[in-house]
Amino acid sequence: MRYGFGLCIIMLIGILPSSFAQNKRLRELGVKIGVMPTGKRNAITDVGGVKVGQTTLIAGDSVRTGATVILPHGGNVFQQKVPAAIELGNGFGKLIGYSQVAELGNLETPIVLTNTLNVSTAAAALVDWTLTQKGNENVRSVNPIVGETNDSYLNDIRGRHVKQTDIIQALQTAVAGNVEEGNVGAGTGTVCFGWKGGIGTSSRKLPAALGGYTVGVLVQTNFGGVLEVAGVPVGVELGKYSFKETLDRSGDGSCMIVVATDAPLDARNLKRLAKRTLLGLGKTGGIMANGSGDYVIAFSTAYTVPHDSNSKFEEQKLLRNDDTSPLFLAVIEATEEAILNSLFMAKTTKGYQGHTVEALPVPKVVDILKKYGKIK
Amino acid sequence: MRYGFGLCIIMLIGILPSSFAQNKRLRELGVKIGVMPTGKRNAITDVGGVKVGQTTLIAGDSVRTGATVILPHGGNVFQQKVPAAIELGNGFGKLIGYSQVAELGNLETPIVLTNTLNVSTAAAALVDWTLTQKGNENVRSVNPIVGETNDSYLNDIRGRHVKQTDIIQALQTAVAGNVEEGNVGAGTGTVCFGWKGGIGTSSRKLPAALGGYTVGVLVQTNFGGVLEVAGVPVGVELGKYSFKETLDRSGDGSCMIVVATDAPLDARNLKRLAKRTLLGLGKTGGIMANGSGDYVIAFSTAYTVPHDSNSKFEEQKLLRNDDTSPLFLAVIEATEEAILNSLFMAKTTKGYQGHTVEALPVPKVVDILKKYGKIK
Amino acid sequence: MRYGFGLCIIMLIGILPSSFAQNKRLRELGVKIGVMPTGKRNAITDVGGVKVGQTTLIAGDSVRTGATVILPHGGNVFQQKVPAAIELGNGFGKLIGYSQVAELGNLETPIVLTNTLNVSTAAAALVDWTLTQKGNENVRSVNPIVGETNDSYLNDIRGRHVKQTDIIQALQTAVAGNVEEGNVGAGTGTVCFGWKGGIGTSSRKLPAALGGYTVGVLVQTNFGGVLEVAGVPVGVELGKYSFKETLDRSGDGSCMIVVATDAPLDARNLKRLAKRTLLGLGKTGGIMANGSGDYVIAFSTAYTVPHDSNSKFEEQKLLRNDDTSPLFLAVIEATEEAILNSLFMAKTTKGYQGHTVEALPVPKVVDILKKYGKIK
Amino acid sequence: MRYGFGLCIIMLIGILPSSFAQNKRLRELGVKIGVMPTGKRNAITDVGGVKVGQTTLIAGDSVRTGATVILPHGGNVFQQKVPAAIELGNGFGKLIGYSQVAELGNLETPIVLTNTLNVSTAAAALVDWTLTQKGNENVRSVNPIVGETNDSYLNDIRGRHVKQTDIIQALQTAVAGNVEEGNVGAGTGTVCFGWKGGIGTSSRKLPAALGGYTVGVLVQTNFGGVLEVAGVPVGVELGKYSFKETLDRSGDGSCMIVVATDAPLDARNLKRLAKRTLLGLGKTGGIMANGSGDYVIAFSTAYTVPHDSNSKFEEQKLLRNDDTSPLFLAVIEATEEAILNSLFMAKTTKGYQGHTVEALPVPKVVDILKKYGKIK
Repeated sequence: MRYGFGLCIIMLIGILPSSFAQNKRLRELGVKIGVMPTGKRNAITDVGGVKVGQTTLIAGDSVRTGATVILPHGGNVFQQKVPAAIELGNGFGKLIGYSQVAELGNLETPIVLTNTLNVSTAAAALVDWTLTQKGNENVRSVNPIVGETNDSYLNDIRGRHVKQTDIIQALQTAVAGNVEEGNVGAGTGTVCFGWKGGIGTSSRKLPAALGGYTVGVLVQTNFGGVLEVAGVPVGVELGKYSFKETLDRSGDGSCMIVVATDAPLDARNLKRLAKRTLLGLGKTGGIMANGSGDYVIAFSTAYTVPHDSNSKFEEQKLLRNDDTSPLFLAVIEATEEAILNSLFMAKTTKGYQGHTVEALPVPKVVDILKKYGKIK
Repeated sequence: MRYGFGLCIIMLIGILPSSFAQNKRLRELGVKIGVMPTGKRNAITDVGGVKVGQTTLIAGDSVRTGATVILPHGGNVFQQKVPAAIELGNGFGKLIGYSQVAELGNLETPIVLTNTLNVSTAAAALVDWTLTQKGNENVRSVNPIVGETNDSYLNDIRGRHVKQTDIIQALQTAVAGNVEEGNVGAGTGTVCFGWKGGIGTSSRKLPAALGGYTVGVLVQTNFGGVLEVAGVPVGVELGKYSFKETLDRSGDGSCMIVVATDAPLDARNLKRLAKRTLLGLGKTGGIMANGSGDYVIAFSTAYTVPHDSNSKFEEQKLLRNDDTSPLFLAVIEATEEAILNSLFMAKTTKGYQGHTVEALPVPKVVDILKKYGKIK
Repeated sequence: MRYGFGLCIIMLIGILPSSFAQNKRLRELGVKIGVMPTGKRNAITDVGGVKVGQTTLIAGDSVRTGATVILPHGGNVFQQKVPAAIELGNGFGKLIGYSQVAELGNLETPIVLTNTLNVSTAAAALVDWTLTQKGNENVRSVNPIVGETNDSYLNDIRGRHVKQTDIIQALQTAVAGNVEEGNVGAGTGTVCFGWKGGIGTSSRKLPAALGGYTVGVLVQTNFGGVLEVAGVPVGVELGKYSFKETLDRSGDGSCMIVVATDAPLDARNLKRLAKRTLLGLGKTGGIMANGSGDYVIAFSTAYTVPHDSNSKFEEQKLLRNDDTSPLFLAVIEATEEAILNSLFMAKTTKGYQGHTVEALPVPKVVDILKKYGKIK
Repeated sequence: MRYGFGLCIIMLIGILPSSFAQNKRLRELGVKIGVMPTGKRNAITDVGGVKVGQTTLIAGDSVRTGATVILPHGGNVFQQKVPAAIELGNGFGKLIGYSQVAELGNLETPIVLTNTLNVSTAAAALVDWTLTQKGNENVRSVNPIVGETNDSYLNDIRGRHVKQTDIIQALQTAVAGNVEEGNVGAGTGTVCFGWKGGIGTSSRKLPAALGGYTVGVLVQTNFGGVLEVAGVPVGVELGKYSFKETLDRSGDGSCMIVVATDAPLDARNLKRLAKRTLLGLGKTGGIMANGSGDYVIAFSTAYTVPHDSNSKFEEQKLLRNDDTSPLFLAVIEATEEAILNSLFMAKTTKGYQGHTVEALPVPKVVDILKKYGKIK
């Protein structure tokens, strides 16, 4: 038994308690974010080939953590890398893998999100996963990509309860369908705007005249500020926001943002796309506080970069700079909605040292949204 | 007569036509942005010592341009430099002066904003101004700071009508009091969200318990997106926003943002402060489109860096990282409000090739704000 | 007469005094730098299509300055942009045009090098040149690229003697053949390692098995350190180097480096190429002192990026990351040799306030090179 | 037995086999690098308070790896952070910890160097070490700093033989005295310019008139290029260098560089200092090839940044920009010499799959240095 004689429940995606089904995503409440249409599932998995896997660790009084993994495609990511970029919003975080992506412009492993003190566990697992994957027998260098937020208010983070097997499990069970949101995976123990945060996702599909591309976003929310929902000052109305009490540090925390798109962008334009997500974060009331680790990892599925090649060349058909702006609007909207979904889908959670974090009081929020004309 | 036999009106700050007085700033309409109190004037000049000067050029059918200058203090800026940083939001612009600020962490001239094709004029004027300033007789290297947006829809930009004397005039007439907004200075010919943009300003003053610092922002707005006013979807309600018609490029354009603060920050933390303004821009519906030159220049007035010194050392008392977050919230709010002020204060303008850009239809906007519960 | 009643001599490339012919390039003295073969002319113009033009201004006692321009191709550079990147070595300089190149990954004007206080003149000239070029009638936004070093020891820099016509002249007379080196163009008044510096150039042509590409470098040298020639400690042997006298600032100054290649690189790999030139600078003994403006502008001539296009896409055949390393070695070697050529080709110059800067004492240097086994 | 039935030798600093004593450092051979005097030990530990610890793992046929740790001071580094910066030379590497240092400007753990596939092991160990250190009972966020090079030619890197206990041991046995060089610690299995590389160190002490500061450098060398020793083309003379055979990739590999100084620099100037080391690398013939992970971590011991403070302020007495240049020269020289020391101190090594890497043939090199007048 890993957690001494405590109870250990590992909930995998698809076997979440039915109570989760009661939450509604923002859009189901009748609130639209922005002007662009969503993809079919309104999820990062609307981008063809992208898979998400999650391991949720809830055990005893104090284990409230987990991992969420995003696979850019179902093949061997090391052998078929994807173009990628990482934007450093605020760098007070422990992201692993930045410099190689910046240098080479691509990603060679899936992305793992977990808690702050388990990033090395996750990195080790990603290396293992890659080394043992078929076709990688001679691989001797791997750049794992791991992001995190700090779930230490609800989780016994110093216990480092995420194990390599938990990461592998998330990788192995990743699927292309719907994505669980709220208290799940890497979002199990996170807190957002003083309410229970977690995992959220959303997507946009551009009209055909704008290219018809899909942009998907997945977030792990654990930050503060002054919550706004679709522009409505919900944080103020609920009387809970950063710096209301002047000496608080509730603005601290972090947001991990993963962006997938099928638009044919190279690393330079993916970086620009990544940067725009921060505007979506701002629209929810986030402030990228000093204590935030706000990182954006963006990749394209439009083409792959083979690890080995008989050719000295890559031949690419890339979207011109001039045609990137609709993607920028799309990603801002999807980020805003993904963050809000993480809040609307989360549940009240009690954890480490008896701390309780309430779920966003959705009925009250709905009333506020009505008051401000956002829900009729 | 500089513009052939056309009519040349140079309007300096303080002698603007009375009609401008009819516009109201957003806050006068009863709309508050954010949760922090403003400074006394709700302007960048609330930061002690900061001065703003503007030259407005309106002549004949097609000259609609000008310059806006910001002086960090009333002394010799070259001899007493100020700590500074520049954030590149989207770099499709012609900002002059970036690299030296990035390298040395300070600013040695005032900041000038003007139109895209006159940045070299403005830079030459700043160099002249500096070389001829008392005490600078031996100066042989100057790093002028000039930003711009492209006013070519309303202004005959290829005519490059801003002259060095116009810049010098703005520098010489700069004052510490109220700042004219709307169609003035570098904002004379700009367009924002499809409406007439221009110059806007706002400030925040932190509560004493958070340090009591002031943060002031001045913007030159010339960009697109999907306008939101205090979170209300005004652009959608008015039926005017980027990508409504799928092939438009109305999102392009630029936003210059200048931030002043009396908080004792060094270049590193000023850069972090600068970066947060982009979240304020996002909250107005800006998207940092491909064609945007979105730059943020931030400086502190808390201390100066002497050009020459008998000491090998600078002794500084700097705010700790941990205490920067309230400033981040403040600058986001001030940027959002400054951008909105630029719209609310601007007037319908007819210019180059008969193009007309309407002012934001304030009465309609007020109705929309009432509909969404923002004005009672 | 532009310079009052002084004598004004404008020397254009090709009509330099015959005395210049007496200097020999490093390689003519029997010294090879590195292991890669040079191109035909051992000059930046070995890269097909690249042209260089220079205006040299020598007048009276105190005008010792000029401009050097590099054209990536002979067509309309605004309409057919070239992929490009700029590396900031040490940013204490006044380079114009950085951010747009960083954002969009291309160059839309020729590159101009001149003196520190004339960069705005040069930028204005480049804008003029571009606006009036055939096919650019509707252009309303131009990103001129101008670099500089500070020639104020030999030149009356505060007089800002470079005029827009001087820049235009250099652009109009640019040619694809041999490149004058030493006291010419933007190098007329510069100082390097305490000796007369100036313009230098060199190139490398990769063996066919490594791709067969050409890399050309042109430098404007105006910096200090501890001179080494082909690894030989010439500065120490001659008793002239920075910090020999402990309180000197002779290390200050700047180096502008322009890199051209026909290898099919995008902006990301061009930036990597640009960065390596700094290693070549280091090999000559340069230290990128605090007061240096060391910038590298790299572009590829392998393909162009049209300003307008009927397609939403660019189709590119790019060199894989894995095959860039030989180019890195090549550019290091070419930079080292270009810097040394600038020294070996320069002549003793007397200028502003009677200052004299001696040419590198080549006979003595040859003796030193013999002593260290570099010349037999 | 950890390595199956193989022999496991863990050699700690101070108990290396006597054969190592036979190698001589470059300076002992009569070759000086540069013009600045060294510190007392010509080692990074000349900077007061800095400690180095190393664990060397040699076992059976194929384990040739280890770890080297650098402690900025002997206290609790998390509670008393040091100002720091990281420069990304070429980012094809797996450095952990970059973004937080870039954001906050300080370092909160010792630095660990190890092999590519063990960085997560080392990071986990650093987290453990920090969490369990006295005074850190409430720490719930740690930013470990781990660098690496790839020793897979001599070491069974896929076996990931470095364990957390090995890292802890290096941390616990770190000392302030002499630093073992060559095949030791993280340099046990590395290869440099085709010869056996490893750990090297050097320092410079500025004359009092230049501030009297000490700059120390420690390197882990594992890269290629065209070796030069004090400017002498040793690689060419020995007939071993990258791209001699046109299709080789021997330039790949990496160099980790750690810089310590007692000069009072903040993060901005530490980053500038870090960047100059790359010029020292270039002077040895390194080219920062595509496959290199060249990173520089620089810190100052002049002051600490407390994790908690009763004050909102840091009061610092920092060296002015103008006085940094001598440090730049010093760090270039120390880096060059540290790299060369790593080569001169290394021993021929046989390892993984029977691969053998010869030590630099010092007698031949001495002959070459004599031929080129560097040794008399």
